[in-house]
Amino acid sequence: MRVRDIAERLGLTWEGDGEREVLRVAPLDTAGSGELAFANSRRALRDAQSSSAGCLLVPLEFPNPGGRTLIRAKDPRAACAKVIPWLHPVPQPPRGIHPAALIGADCDIAAGVSIGPLCVVGDGVRIGSGSVLYPGVHVYPGVEIGERAVIHSGAVIGADGFGFVFEDGRYSKFPQVGRVVIGNDVEIGANCTIDRAALGVTSIGDGSKLDNLVHIAHNCRIGRHVVIAAQTGLAGGTVIEDYAVIGGQVGMGDNVTVKSGAVVGSGAGILSSKVLRGGEVWWGTPARPLKEYLETLANVGRLPQLRREVEELRRRLEELEKPRGS
Amino acid sequence: MRVRDIAERLGLTWEGDGEREVLRVAPLDTAGSGELAFANSRRALRDAQSSSAGCLLVPLEFPNPGGRTLIRAKDPRAACAKVIPWLHPVPQPPRGIHPAALIGADCDIAAGVSIGPLCVVGDGVRIGSGSVLYPGVHVYPGVEIGERAVIHSGAVIGADGFGFVFEDGRYSKFPQVGRVVIGNDVEIGANCTIDRAALGVTSIGDGSKLDNLVHIAHNCRIGRHVVIAAQTGLAGGTVIEDYAVIGGQVGMGDNVTVKSGAVVGSGAGILSSKVLRGGEVWWGTPARPLKEYLETLANVGRLPQLRREVEELRRRLEELEKPRGS
Amino acid sequence: MRVRDIAERLGLTWEGDGEREVLRVAPLDTAGSGELAFANSRRALRDAQSSSAGCLLVPLEFPNPGGRTLIRAKDPRAACAKVIPWLHPVPQPPRGIHPAALIGADCDIAAGVSIGPLCVVGDGVRIGSGSVLYPGVHVYPGVEIGERAVIHSGAVIGADGFGFVFEDGRYSKFPQVGRVVIGNDVEIGANCTIDRAALGVTSIGDGSKLDNLVHIAHNCRIGRHVVIAAQTGLAGGTVIEDYAVIGGQVGMGDNVTVKSGAVVGSGAGILSSKVLRGGEVWWGTPARPLKEYLETLANVGRLPQLRREVEELRRRLEELEKPRGS
Repeated sequence: MRVRDIAERLGLTWEGDGEREVLRVAPLDTAGSGELAFANSRRALRDAQSSSAGCLLVPLEFPNPGGRTLIRAKDPRAACAKVIPWLHPVPQPPRGIHPAALIGADCDIAAGVSIGPLCVVGDGVRIGSGSVLYPGVHVYPGVEIGERAVIHSGAVIGADGFGFVFEDGRYSKFPQVGRVVIGNDVEIGANCTIDRAALGVTSIGDGSKLDNLVHIAHNCRIGRHVVIAAQTGLAGGTVIEDYAVIGGQVGMGDNVTVKSGAVVGSGAGILSSKVLRGGEVWWGTPARPLKEYLETLANVGRLPQLRREVEELRRRLEELEKPRGS
Repeated sequence: MRVRDIAERLGLTWEGDGEREVLRVAPLDTAGSGELAFANSRRALRDAQSSSAGCLLVPLEFPNPGGRTLIRAKDPRAACAKVIPWLHPVPQPPRGIHPAALIGADCDIAAGVSIGPLCVVGDGVRIGSGSVLYPGVHVYPGVEIGERAVIHSGAVIGADGFGFVFEDGRYSKFPQVGRVVIGNDVEIGANCTIDRAALGVTSIGDGSKLDNLVHIAHNCRIGRHVVIAAQTGLAGGTVIEDYAVIGGQVGMGDNVTVKSGAVVGSGAGILSSKVLRGGEVWWGTPARPLKEYLETLANVGRLPQLRREVEELRRRLEELEKPRGS
Repeated sequence: MRVRDIAERLGLTWEGDGEREVLRVAPLDTAGSGELAFANSRRALRDAQSSSAGCLLVPLEFPNPGGRTLIRAKDPRAACAKVIPWLHPVPQPPRGIHPAALIGADCDIAAGVSIGPLCVVGDGVRIGSGSVLYPGVHVYPGVEIGERAVIHSGAVIGADGFGFVFEDGRYSKFPQVGRVVIGNDVEIGANCTIDRAALGVTSIGDGSKLDNLVHIAHNCRIGRHVVIAAQTGLAGGTVIEDYAVIGGQVGMGDNVTVKSGAVVGSGAGILSSKVLRGGEVWWGTPARPLKEYLETLANVGRLPQLRREVEELRRRLEELEKPRGS
């Protein structure tokens, strides 16, 4: 595709050599003359000036003193996401149920679903149209999965929640007879584990996205359009409301509530039953609003100086305590 | 079942409408008129008063001014665990070895075991009676699993421990020729990894329960009736004694010892070779007794105030330092 | 083998009963009269004196007043790694592609590779000679794996990176059309997840070793001879240079750079875009050089004392502030 074709199809303006042929999209640091690269972050914008990319996809205000060939976009990364499928084959898993998948009894699996080899789908599972189960996904009995969901290899949906009763010196299982309900347009990363509810439902709302190795315990309720990065774990009964963004390696105790639109920084730890206000960034363990967290960090960092100040006050005080006239 | 039938079968007393029909057990917040719900935690007890549940399972001292239909129990959650199987089908994986499971040579697999499809059981594995391997469990050669163990999908038992020798600028493997021995009544969550010992044995004692995505390194020895929550990881040679309770996302270095009955809070980090006393709650990184940890947190939280106090002392000192009579 | 045979084959000297028969290698604490055990750490050297092992493999300077039978080595653990295969069968997975593995179209799989049952290898995958895929490894299309690589059960190589574009209140996928390239002599632990690049390549260099449940996001570049312990996660675009050593449960944000030879302590958290100098040990969250981290810990630990000192200064100041002569 020529630069001008790409720009026109995006509805955007271009500068430089509109006839230039673009063969591929590539990362900024390796892109060559036949390749398009986008620049978004401050660092990328600095690097873009020296990039060898044949065409740059840059923000509207990007300075172009050298007359580089480029396309301007309000959101270059979003624009790039549109260009990639025009120039690259985006692998699509084949539709249908692979003969080496195992499907249980009484399942309701829509037409157009893709279920890869070595998936095991238990009895009574429902999967909506357009959903993709990559090879080796395990779905326990009774789980419901919406439309256009994408579940990566090794994910386990619907295993028993972790609930036990301690009596007479031993643990016995609290029966885990609830379900898992996954909405439309949900993506679940490789090797995630989403446990069934003890009673009732563990749910993941429409449009939510989970990275790899995320753990969702029994009876969690995750709202719509929630993002959870890799290796985060939620204990039982935790509620994440719509549009929350949860970083990686976050740990939440039982019955936490993360209100709509809250952002939880990577590595944060949230104690059981805590409620995190929405529209706020939370960080640290125990999680606090970002501003408080940074103040605490700064205060701790200044401890050596505080110690020196106290030492100095002591010396001056001793000076004053000396008997006059001596 | 009628309320009175449930109470009688539990050996407990009931109040209100003993003839009321209970169809299901449900979570407190969604339970309706035909459903029983239990209340245990302080929050649940508050919510119970306004619950629509047809029957409540509550502690002995629960006030009942409104004359609700209820059953009193010393441990309502434990009582509920008994009721659930009377009212709900608790899914039981079918006995026997699924034809799509792969079983190695020289295995000793007891009658009555359930091995799901796509399990891979290596040569020389021993599995005791009543144990369940959900679909897709991987058991490397030579592993021993006791009776009534439950292992969820995606768990990998007996992979090589992570041991290498660094020589001449490269790592070569320290041969991992030990075994894994798992006791009776152990439960292992989805996608856990339990490595074989380098030499000797990695072991998990009778009655211990592991949540999902737990990592147990080579040569760890976990005692009896230990509970380990999700995403916790133990490095090589760590020993967890009987009845310890380990929270989620805990990390332990090499050769840690957690003494019998110790409790380690979620997210704690324990340095190599540390010994955590039993009968104590440990928290934070590096892990300390809970009281110390809370004091430290409080002290850090009061740092801004301490800084202000030092500032005030300085001002007062300056006042005193001024020459008299000026 | 006799003690003298082992010593000679290692090119080392022995003391005591050279004719003694050694049947096995065993851990120091359980080794009996027919067994050899090595001692390396300070604790092990203390324990070695009372060990019942028939033969000890010890450092050159190990005191031997009791005239124990032993072999002296510069690096006893490395020497032991050589002895183990002489006395123990080291399980070797069978060569070839197991009939229950699924191999895609247009793959280039070298002779002598071992691919276990229930591995799923996507289209266009390349695997170099001598590599081992244990049962149940998932390799997405287009992945390249070098020679003598070892990949344990449940690992997922080449799943989509976690990249989304947020527009009009919902997330849509940033197409993940890049690849994964894994070098020679790489080992990847059970249930690891290595995502494909969005554009370009996610790579793991020759000789690097990953423990279980490690997460490597899209576009990470891991150098040669890097070690990463269990449950560590790297976000997108992070670069780990050669010979770095990364502990367990470490979390790194986007675009971190860990310079060659750096050591990152277990549980550390590294903020996005940080650069960690090489030849240094980093610890804590946010990660600092070890010395700084320990100082901070110590300062926080001394806070109660600092508070008492400030209190004392206040009292003495109040004394001075009292009007003279009163």
